[in-house]
Amino acid sequence: MFRNVSEEEAQATIESAWSQGVRYFDTAPFYGAGLSEMRLGEALAEQDRKEFVLSSKVGRVILEEQEEKSGLFEQARKNKIQTDYTEAGTLRSIEQSLKRLNTDYLDMVFVHDLSPDFLEDEWITKFDEARKGAFRTLTRLKEEGVIKSWGLGVNTTTPIEVAMELEEANPDLNLSATQYTLMQHERALERMMPLAQRKGVGIVVGGPYNSGALLGGDHFDYAQATDEVKALVNELNNIAKQYDVNLKAAALQFSTAHPAVQAAIPGSTRPERIKEDLAAMNEKIPDPFWEELQQKKLISETAPLPHKE
Amino acid sequence: MFRNVSEEEAQATIESAWSQGVRYFDTAPFYGAGLSEMRLGEALAEQDRKEFVLSSKVGRVILEEQEEKSGLFEQARKNKIQTDYTEAGTLRSIEQSLKRLNTDYLDMVFVHDLSPDFLEDEWITKFDEARKGAFRTLTRLKEEGVIKSWGLGVNTTTPIEVAMELEEANPDLNLSATQYTLMQHERALERMMPLAQRKGVGIVVGGPYNSGALLGGDHFDYAQATDEVKALVNELNNIAKQYDVNLKAAALQFSTAHPAVQAAIPGSTRPERIKEDLAAMNEKIPDPFWEELQQKKLISETAPLPHKE
Repeated sequence: MFRNVSEEEAQATIESAWSQGVRYFDTAPFYGAGLSEMRLGEALAEQDRKEFVLSSKVGRVILEEQEEKSGLFEQARKNKIQTDYTEAGTLRSIEQSLKRLNTDYLDMVFVHDLSPDFLEDEWITKFDEARKGAFRTLTRLKEEGVIKSWGLGVNTTTPIEVAMELEEANPDLNLSATQYTLMQHERALERMMPLAQRKGVGIVVGGPYNSGALLGGDHFDYAQATDEVKALVNELNNIAKQYDVNLKAAALQFSTAHPAVQAAIPGSTRPERIKEDLAAMNEKIPDPFWEELQQKKLISETAPLPHKE
Repeated sequence: MFRNVSEEEAQATIESAWSQGVRYFDTAPFYGAGLSEMRLGEALAEQDRKEFVLSSKVGRVILEEQEEKSGLFEQARKNKIQTDYTEAGTLRSIEQSLKRLNTDYLDMVFVHDLSPDFLEDEWITKFDEARKGAFRTLTRLKEEGVIKSWGLGVNTTTPIEVAMELEEANPDLNLSATQYTLMQHERALERMMPLAQRKGVGIVVGGPYNSGALLGGDHFDYAQATDEVKALVNELNNIAKQYDVNLKAAALQFSTAHPAVQAAIPGSTRPERIKEDLAAMNEKIPDPFWEELQQKKLISETAPLPHKE
């Protein structure tokens, strides 16, 4: 999202992931206005569909109509993007995604950005649109075998909580981005996670590095990192150094240590990063590192920790 | 709600409360289809309005049209009740309440039963109606001085949580009935309470005895008590006896011990009960009683306990 990724680099990144054993790929119509799905579809065209797991999203339909784009979306296709959580929008979006991805089914579908950070208080109105539209439609598509599971894909916790409590059509698996990370997890721990466990609903953690801030990047939660955020990363890095711990490994292992969490999506755009992410999952992290983070109240004392050696 | 209360008994109950120093009274148009507000208005007519605090509710408008009623509402007035969270419904409801209560302002107004236990999944649709209607209208009435504060009055926690996070018009003070009691508090502790504290929003606990079940009654959460509920009450009673503790006192003190809680509404219909409730608030409860409840996991270990002696 924050830089131009060439066709070659995108293909090389996916190939690198595949060759190292990655078999789960997440995308969305919104990413590059269809470009991400098209690239992923191309890269995976030669592989056996049953060998990998694919998730995409609904809620933003890509139109034929073109427009000029700038800022974060400068590198995207020029197609207009329309927010739409209705039944018709959902069916149209899934149909387009299957085409762009060269497949006839999706393993997971996330209802994208149905959340106050994008929609402000109108998220309630749109949530009701999705409840009568996308949620029922995805439940039907699941029964028909077009998709295997569905849930919300959002950067806040409340919409996931509300959806998990619905009677008629409610999610199997939710993508919670940047809300259960080493840097930010209090809220998810208090509310979303216990509810997910009680309801038997899975959580996929997106953005475990909080848009890169945790790795020293300039972005936190899809916005510019503040000085406060940078100071916290600095503090975490200093402690990590003392224990010879890679902060990336700590972040990835922290996000996946909670029993409700089924997977994490690090979100790499560079081939060399895939290897790092995989190594990070296997790196041994000494218990005293976690204990120091707890003592300094940098992580919650109620957060489940990676298996202690 | 569960028995016929005569005019005389109602007046005697309110007078008993007043003479013992009770200065907060909660009512609703829904209670007896206006009857509760009329009786309270009559009983308080001689008192100085500034001396007491009054809360009522919106969301159910009492119509002139009459109908036959049965079951729980057999003793109510025959007027039809209409669920309505719009601006027009809210204004009409407040106007009627002020008239029935013989007053020109309300200290608190709760948006009544905007919650899945009454509305099922449609609570989302109605919540959106209330967001654009009741919430904005009550915020305006507060600015105009017609009401002093407003919030939700519901028997589940999620609608309160969603409302506390709205940007445009959100509550000052919510009435959470039967959700933060000695018998049931895990969910509120996990989610609603931390959010209320973070947002600086108050909670009034309604139904601290869970519709009477905690005192050995036949109702739990406005429904028939199950055998499981009765067994739990039995267990609590046995422990209370060992420490010579009145379970009513323990229930009332537990519900008000959380720092987010501003008041509890026991909901008495008999004059002699008022004295009991007041005495219960002042009874000394030995610490080992609470410790045994914690050890036996009958109460959450993270629940704040009444001040230890």
